[in-house]
Amino acid sequence: MPRPSTGVPNGAWTDPDCPVARTLDLVGDRWSLLVLRDAMDGARSFTEFQRRTGIARNILSDRLRKLGAHGLLTQETAPTGRRLEYALTDKGRDLFPVLLTLRQWGERHAFDPGEPRSTLVDEHGIRVPDLTPTGADGAPLTSDSTHVRKTGRSR
Amino acid sequence: MPRPSTGVPNGAWTDPDCPVARTLDLVGDRWSLLVLRDAMDGARSFTEFQRRTGIARNILSDRLRKLGAHGLLTQETAPTGRRLEYALTDKGRDLFPVLLTLRQWGERHAFDPGEPRSTLVDEHGIRVPDLTPTGADGAPLTSDSTHVRKTGRSR
Repeated sequence: MPRPSTGVPNGAWTDPDCPVARTLDLVGDRWSLLVLRDAMDGARSFTEFQRRTGIARNILSDRLRKLGAHGLLTQETAPTGRRLEYALTDKGRDLFPVLLTLRQWGERHAFDPGEPRSTLVDEHGIRVPDLTPTGADGAPLTSDSTHVRKTGRSR
Repeated sequence: MPRPSTGVPNGAWTDPDCPVARTLDLVGDRWSLLVLRDAMDGARSFTEFQRRTGIARNILSDRLRKLGAHGLLTQETAPTGRRLEYALTDKGRDLFPVLLTLRQWGERHAFDPGEPRSTLVDEHGIRVPDLTPTGADGAPLTSDSTHVRKTGRSR
């Protein structure tokens, strides 16, 4: 199988027709998603990523390399000098809804009452509202009211 | 550190204050999320999960056990007899927005033009619209217009 230009690591997608599976082939591991979380919150250097995640250096190097190879992170010269910094590409930044829904599920289900937790807020300091799937008519959707249509050429 | 009642595998969260990290500690691997994808699309038996994902039996057993231990899947008697089936709990079903945003990012970034792909549709066969983060005022939000607030006791 030829290596897809969209960049799966070992040249073969786990489930080529499924957009969920392709995304998971590219970023579906805990450390990649935590690095993206920190990049979205302003981390720019190897040291900063390491400090925030507590990740081992060799794993962090590997994930930064993969995220670069998949076009999610890039390296650019820092505004203040010649040092290179990591920066999200548009493709990387577009994972924001994924990180947001992971966060909101965790808020609902992974904390006991009263446990301290961080909050994602907007520029006015207001908590970002829950993201709720809705249909074209505005009605809430769940896994029970949707299904996967396998098509040869969708969209 | 005592084992949290919310169920992290080895008794310690990677980043205890962060809801993103807690969610990833519980379901942040490719196979767990693919099993949840298939459960949302109607898979109920070990054989069905194996057929859909192509996952190795020992890995599938491990993920089904973990998803059960974390309260995302349960086993119940099939309507037609005494066979046990896997079923999503409310907590598992509530990961629908995560799977949906993973899917929609994949649609936007992981396919070349014209490549065949599955589509998630509602009960009328209409594609589920893109899920877009918005603020309390309805304006679109991105990682650039939000930030993480570290608080002792949030919410």
